[in-house]
Amino acid sequence: MKPLAVTLGDPSGIGPEIVAKAWSRRKSDQIMPFFAIGSAASIQAVSSIPVVAITDPNEVISIFDQALPVWDIPSKETIIPGKPNKAGAEVAFAALEKGVALVKQGQASALVTAPVSKAELYQVGFTFPGQTEFVANRCGIAADDAVMMLAGPDLRTVPLTIHIPYRDVLEQLTPELIISRARVTVEDLKRNFAIPSPRLVVAGLNPHAGENGTIGREEIDSIEPAIRQLQAENIDIKGPFAADTLFSPRARATYDVALCPTHDQALIPIKTINFDNGVNTTLGLPIIRTSPDHGTAFPLAGKNKADEGAMVAALVMAANSAHNRQAYAQNSIDG
Amino acid sequence: MKPLAVTLGDPSGIGPEIVAKAWSRRKSDQIMPFFAIGSAASIQAVSSIPVVAITDPNEVISIFDQALPVWDIPSKETIIPGKPNKAGAEVAFAALEKGVALVKQGQASALVTAPVSKAELYQVGFTFPGQTEFVANRCGIAADDAVMMLAGPDLRTVPLTIHIPYRDVLEQLTPELIISRARVTVEDLKRNFAIPSPRLVVAGLNPHAGENGTIGREEIDSIEPAIRQLQAENIDIKGPFAADTLFSPRARATYDVALCPTHDQALIPIKTINFDNGVNTTLGLPIIRTSPDHGTAFPLAGKNKADEGAMVAALVMAANSAHNRQAYAQNSIDG
Repeated sequence: MKPLAVTLGDPSGIGPEIVAKAWSRRKSDQIMPFFAIGSAASIQAVSSIPVVAITDPNEVISIFDQALPVWDIPSKETIIPGKPNKAGAEVAFAALEKGVALVKQGQASALVTAPVSKAELYQVGFTFPGQTEFVANRCGIAADDAVMMLAGPDLRTVPLTIHIPYRDVLEQLTPELIISRARVTVEDLKRNFAIPSPRLVVAGLNPHAGENGTIGREEIDSIEPAIRQLQAENIDIKGPFAADTLFSPRARATYDVALCPTHDQALIPIKTINFDNGVNTTLGLPIIRTSPDHGTAFPLAGKNKADEGAMVAALVMAANSAHNRQAYAQNSIDG
Repeated sequence: MKPLAVTLGDPSGIGPEIVAKAWSRRKSDQIMPFFAIGSAASIQAVSSIPVVAITDPNEVISIFDQALPVWDIPSKETIIPGKPNKAGAEVAFAALEKGVALVKQGQASALVTAPVSKAELYQVGFTFPGQTEFVANRCGIAADDAVMMLAGPDLRTVPLTIHIPYRDVLEQLTPELIISRARVTVEDLKRNFAIPSPRLVVAGLNPHAGENGTIGREEIDSIEPAIRQLQAENIDIKGPFAADTLFSPRARATYDVALCPTHDQALIPIKTINFDNGVNTTLGLPIIRTSPDHGTAFPLAGKNKADEGAMVAALVMAANSAHNRQAYAQNSIDG
């Protein structure tokens, strides 16, 4: 299998450090060979691991054991950890473009993206709400059809709405949205996670899932019709359930993924229990894409204090997903 | 100190079982003497522990070591675990009334309430949204001034709005509400929890706390003005913070209580990490009141499967709070 492509994200953030630390754990964590895309100097500024420049992902296999292979995109200005600048944002943008291209071309098995700063990227012509929407665009997928899933060792959640104001959820949480996100989720739990019959649950929007309409009607008006439609398609989906009791250890054992009406309902439980190893993965794409579920953490950069757990988890998930999708495609052909 | 008064809740729910099991743990968990209020028969229907009827809480101390003292309120009909009826609801209502009265009169140190069924209580003349509002009413406190706090071993949260529809939060989350709830919380963290200078944080309503108004303005319009006012009163309060990252182990170490705009923001983290030992306590009352943070669980009743962890935690918290409040009052007099 081809190696994983890992963009370093903003070179002044913690991306270079956590990628270097993840490479150091390649043996203990049995991490599939990968290469970094971004500024080699940004790694050398925060780490003493050996790095080797490459110009072809096929070189990775022979290098990976001894050094971190880097597809180098030099910065026009010096990179200072913790101090983002325009030149660094240009590197981050170019790395992302290169990473998607290499995976699309089949030169890498999957894309893993370290965190970028949206505020910085907006200054160099980036026009997307985030990396997820950028990757979807470059893959020719409508942003609405790319589904964010958060996954930790103990839980998977899909926020049905994401970075929108609280009040806008009322309008955007339509049966169509829920149906569309659920279908994509089912398909990619099969393809990327090798779960043949994914079990989905849906959280309510209102406290206690509205208690039969006495504390809000969105469950009756939007969520239940969507669930009925999906059940008619033979999808194993149940709900709406009270969000507060849906994430206890006993409840989690009953499903593979929880679809949540709001950002906070989906993110709070993951970050509460799997803060240092939560992965953000994009479903519905022709390629595999994962990302550690945290930001650039500029104040931490350059201090050797960043935790690489989520990056390691993102690498492992990307490799597993790439393997699973290959096997799924093979089975589909054989079948 | 006087014993704790424990209402059994709906006699067909898991209340009698978890109170009996909690009594069995009186030595291992060093639980302060308590007595049950409700149907003695409902305990005998699900447990073989010895029970002794009392008519005066002063009898408790001499009995507690050998048997569970019960202030018996017989049911007019047979109690069947898992099958609630009107007679059982009448017992639950009467027990609650008696429990509050005994604590108010100083015959018991604190009130611990096992779960009731609101649907059942409504059929026998109970007109409150829940036990919290009933207790507040009987103590002469406006329901709005009684503050629900959830507390587990690892986290305390206060939902600023509770059982109201999602859309109504937008209107109800005013600076006045936040200020009032925060003041009550500070006062009772001092009185009941012996925290001399409580550290409060406030979660945002919108994802990422609104990102400076780009994803919603409630932080700017309601939460920040409230925080400024409270800080001017020398209250240690910070925020608004993104709710999703506020409950990681590292974040939790930085505060004593998190105030959350919505029910789910406050309840999800507690029930995710402390499902079997979360306690619901009411702040702002002249008396101490705690409750296990779960419901009647009728389907579990009579099967010896109910987990008494939260009841034990509620008893321990009630005893500690009663001690702390007595010491606080004494210090205030001495000072």
